[in-house]
Amino acid sequence: MPIQTAATPALLVDRTKLEANIRSMAERLDALKVPLRPHLKTCKNIEIARMTLAGQPGGITVSTMAEAAYFAGHGLEDILYAVGIAPGKLEACARMMDQGVELTLILDNPDTARSAVEAAGALDRNFSFLLEVDSDGQRAGFVPDDPALVETARMLEQGGCTVAGVMTHAGGSYACRNTEAIAQMAETERATVVAAAAALREAGFEAPVTSIGSTPTATFARNLSGVSEVRAGVYLFQDLVMAGLGVCQPEDIALSVLTEVIGHRRAQGEVLVDAGWMALSRDRGTANQDTDQGYGLVCTAAGEILEDTIVRATNQEHGIVANRDGEPLDVREFPVGRRLRILPNHACATAGQFSHYQVVNRGRDMPEVLERCGGW
Amino acid sequence: MPIQTAATPALLVDRTKLEANIRSMAERLDALKVPLRPHLKTCKNIEIARMTLAGQPGGITVSTMAEAAYFAGHGLEDILYAVGIAPGKLEACARMMDQGVELTLILDNPDTARSAVEAAGALDRNFSFLLEVDSDGQRAGFVPDDPALVETARMLEQGGCTVAGVMTHAGGSYACRNTEAIAQMAETERATVVAAAAALREAGFEAPVTSIGSTPTATFARNLSGVSEVRAGVYLFQDLVMAGLGVCQPEDIALSVLTEVIGHRRAQGEVLVDAGWMALSRDRGTANQDTDQGYGLVCTAAGEILEDTIVRATNQEHGIVANRDGEPLDVREFPVGRRLRILPNHACATAGQFSHYQVVNRGRDMPEVLERCGGW
Repeated sequence: MPIQTAATPALLVDRTKLEANIRSMAERLDALKVPLRPHLKTCKNIEIARMTLAGQPGGITVSTMAEAAYFAGHGLEDILYAVGIAPGKLEACARMMDQGVELTLILDNPDTARSAVEAAGALDRNFSFLLEVDSDGQRAGFVPDDPALVETARMLEQGGCTVAGVMTHAGGSYACRNTEAIAQMAETERATVVAAAAALREAGFEAPVTSIGSTPTATFARNLSGVSEVRAGVYLFQDLVMAGLGVCQPEDIALSVLTEVIGHRRAQGEVLVDAGWMALSRDRGTANQDTDQGYGLVCTAAGEILEDTIVRATNQEHGIVANRDGEPLDVREFPVGRRLRILPNHACATAGQFSHYQVVNRGRDMPEVLERCGGW
Repeated sequence: MPIQTAATPALLVDRTKLEANIRSMAERLDALKVPLRPHLKTCKNIEIARMTLAGQPGGITVSTMAEAAYFAGHGLEDILYAVGIAPGKLEACARMMDQGVELTLILDNPDTARSAVEAAGALDRNFSFLLEVDSDGQRAGFVPDDPALVETARMLEQGGCTVAGVMTHAGGSYACRNTEAIAQMAETERATVVAAAAALREAGFEAPVTSIGSTPTATFARNLSGVSEVRAGVYLFQDLVMAGLGVCQPEDIALSVLTEVIGHRRAQGEVLVDAGWMALSRDRGTANQDTDQGYGLVCTAAGEILEDTIVRATNQEHGIVANRDGEPLDVREFPVGRRLRILPNHACATAGQFSHYQVVNRGRDMPEVLERCGGW
């Protein structure tokens, strides 16, 4: 078991919880009759990717070219790169397509389409695109009824590119205050791609792909008719932000940071550990939720949650563990050398600080250490 | 030049600015007659480490065992590991000492000292310690006049360990509101180690080392008599938090993240770029300063600051560039494909998101790419 021997801080993934989370999402989407195109920006690992793809068509979603290259190198070649393409990346995309990768890109404006058409000509490649549509007003995407959507699709097609369909991401679901609001946002997400695809189809495009996804909306969607695939990633591990939204329970979280007690602030009743923001990340995603989890919720080394014990503050390599309400902890319960686990606010951010996972509850057929791809 | 060709996002370091920052700190400490033991947690790179060590005794400070191993592997063997030692790391420390590393550890409580004595016996090693003293009430350290300081020193010595002296870190200087307050904190930092060393010397310890340091206090200290070394790291690159404190000007910042425009939010007058929190980090260290820089201050690709243009919000791989005051930007000035640089809030946090630097203004004797060591 790595819990007593791993150099701290270490990133742990609990296989039992991971499998339960994967099974739960697969069952939900089976019931709604929509396949999953898992977003692998959360796990960035091939063994976990293969677990999420069991019973699914096999397409994946990524957020960096480095992820695309890593997963393609492991045989996952149907890849949606789901960040609006930077023109400077099109040459690297072409090289990846030369190696057999079935790469789909996204864009949300005619300027990028012009660059893509130009690059398609210069590089003699047929780039395939989903047009991004805005479903939450938070970030990117064509406004659904903007005539620029169809005009951009025409420009792409006439320029030798393929318009495979439309996609949206209701990241605004992370700010919902209750599950009913998330269910409504899931319906908005669905309606947005259905309307955008209808506009394209009316203009003569086939647009077979209608892609949506976020873990909260995938969890609480009641109807996904007209949706061809769901992208979600955080559900694999779950995290405290998801628990705050009601997407999961803290007990479901498969990811944690192993740390060791290095000292005390006796006067304050606080405990110093060797996991700071470099390990936990600076993410404070629960700060505006009903329960502020600081930089993470503290568990025993075995993974049992210590209610209301959180990482109150961090420096680069120090964490300060405290009671959420400010009452002093009994520091005798946290002797120097004791190991603890910290559940993360945001799985993507915390996992992003590490180059590998140590697996707990791994069974016989899982390596003890799983790599993560990094960089861009 | 990597500016137009590097895959984005990329971490850039400007050699000209780096050299000026290093020179400036060296001159300041020369005038105060105290040598530097640079904190290499900021750069995590050997070429930059060697630049900081020019004219200095050669000792370094690190914040992880991985940094210690990396720098020792490059011949820097006088290493202070400046995070309260976790007992679980003592075996790895012993292995490192076996390879010739002159390793100094820190601790701030008798419990850790007991573990160290036990490990020193079991592993048959003489561990060398600085006792950490608290100078700002923010994190760790013995209270200066706590009798436990001397008692712990005795326990260590009787247990076959060495007490090399005392150290403190006035991290509270980051929260100062003006340079006079920082100068006062520098004096507190100095007085704290001088008093603690005096207590040890009175008890018969030689305690030659009195180590202090943070970039703000090192910059504004007026008198460092009785101090044997200064640890500082951020000064190498500087950052927006330091600029907000008056430690530097934004123009001095040697570190930036290169990014590319991928779209617009026309209705809001905002610009989407391909650097999100994965590249910029989640650090919001300027949020409580007079000038909130969002997730970073925007510059042209050549490095010229675009006044009041900041990264307002981030997602994992998206940044939203906006005017600080909320007035719409003229998005025509930010065409898709344009490259920009983002100055970081906190150099340690932003650099920590990358595995290497690309060097600008590098001259002939500097490689184009510099590695960074990562992990723990």
